[in-house]
Amino acid sequence: MKLATVRTSEGTRAVKAEGDGLIDLGSTDVGAFLAHADWRDRAADATGPVRPAEGADFAPVVPRPSKVVCVGLNYRNHILEMGRDLPSHPTLFAKFADSLIGAGDDIVRPGETAEFDWEAELTVVIGAQVRRASTAEAERAIAGFTVLNDVTCRDWQFRTREWLQGKAWDSTTPVGPYVVTPDELPGGVRPALDVKLTVDGEQMQSDTTGDLLFDPVALVEYVSTIVRLNPGDLIATGTPGGVGHARDPKRYLLGGETVVTEIQGIGRLVNRVVKDA
Amino acid sequence: MKLATVRTSEGTRAVKAEGDGLIDLGSTDVGAFLAHADWRDRAADATGPVRPAEGADFAPVVPRPSKVVCVGLNYRNHILEMGRDLPSHPTLFAKFADSLIGAGDDIVRPGETAEFDWEAELTVVIGAQVRRASTAEAERAIAGFTVLNDVTCRDWQFRTREWLQGKAWDSTTPVGPYVVTPDELPGGVRPALDVKLTVDGEQMQSDTTGDLLFDPVALVEYVSTIVRLNPGDLIATGTPGGVGHARDPKRYLLGGETVVTEIQGIGRLVNRVVKDA
Repeated sequence: MKLATVRTSEGTRAVKAEGDGLIDLGSTDVGAFLAHADWRDRAADATGPVRPAEGADFAPVVPRPSKVVCVGLNYRNHILEMGRDLPSHPTLFAKFADSLIGAGDDIVRPGETAEFDWEAELTVVIGAQVRRASTAEAERAIAGFTVLNDVTCRDWQFRTREWLQGKAWDSTTPVGPYVVTPDELPGGVRPALDVKLTVDGEQMQSDTTGDLLFDPVALVEYVSTIVRLNPGDLIATGTPGGVGHARDPKRYLLGGETVVTEIQGIGRLVNRVVKDA
Repeated sequence: MKLATVRTSEGTRAVKAEGDGLIDLGSTDVGAFLAHADWRDRAADATGPVRPAEGADFAPVVPRPSKVVCVGLNYRNHILEMGRDLPSHPTLFAKFADSLIGAGDDIVRPGETAEFDWEAELTVVIGAQVRRASTAEAERAIAGFTVLNDVTCRDWQFRTREWLQGKAWDSTTPVGPYVVTPDELPGGVRPALDVKLTVDGEQMQSDTTGDLLFDPVALVEYVSTIVRLNPGDLIATGTPGGVGHARDPKRYLLGGETVVTEIQGIGRLVNRVVKDA
């Protein structure tokens, strides 16, 4: 199943994609929908009303998650290009819901940065509350996967020893368009999928999510050791090599570009970079 | 004015403290109350119903803030005891709402840590939405101040280069009991107040919030440059010297202790440390 949150004249709605249509799921967004313990049955049984998928306006797939947990270094080649050793534990930081935008929204480039960079990321969407999840519990707690571009102000990221202030800018982080359930993906809850990012059609990142050091299930186990995970929470699993900051010469987003972030079988984000007002 | 969120048989309620009573403010919690643009007038005019303050059960003063932003190194003496240089920019990290507990609640010590430590912190409560606040806007956006103990698993904090995983444990962070408006505090929006923390009556931290490198107004300006701040958002301004990790010999919370965190004119947190089930 593919679930999304779309903007309508009556506010946002959770929908299921089927053929050319988007079937209303009776909730305001995917986060609220996943809070129903029987969301899988509800989604399977949903009959409508149906909107056309064509021209849909996607909100962040979960607009107000209680947590956006991001993993910092999780692809071997990205770790090596940033000049670091392979870690024994996942590196975690947070984003705020106010950083999130929809799959087709403009990425707002702040005037305060000179080093605005991309990071394509496979992202776990949580479908049940869990704490200290066992492997089996973690597998079941994964509602599905979505696509996220962890757009980063590198100069602010490295101002201090904590990355948050480079990562948490308002309206910089597209996420969506769909949550795809693991049964639809090769590898299931540990999917091996092509992840790609282009800037104005030029390929910048290309890897497979099968190269993750800490796979989605391991991340749910690890994060839920620390804090409960709630339905709709997001775990961005880290980015592969090819970010602008690690290129020679370095490349950054200046405004006016179109960035396409795509994961095979899940979907794609298409975002224009606009300068802040 | 002193505002709080208390637990009642009908769920949480926002209240104003006056004499021996807590006057109901007509909202479910202080976060929802501060979302009213005219909250200052509403609080001034509130007439009831009134509950006794004696025996009140305090929830986190804002139970579900959209952001809990924490400042890492902000008192000269704590920076020096941790062996660091004075920074040119604030170091920021995040907590999740699920880390927060009430002023009298038990602090849950995870079995996974051997280095469970305290951090008394003056905390800003936001009273209006702001982005890129000027100094005057930042001053007006401060609803008031509260007390927070940023209890930290040091071993997890230093596992990787990002602190989040030492800071975000479930039900470890008491905050409250009251938000006190700046007009009641010496120094107003830049208050100079004694901040103290004791463990089983033994004083561990004692300083004045006048020693902050980045004062509350400067922090609202800085954080709101990055991301909008919403009513009820919290900015924990950092901790002074005297944490257990920097003592010789090191001291940690093992379970069974009572920790009292107090800021002059604002209030005190009294929390027992209990072992996780």
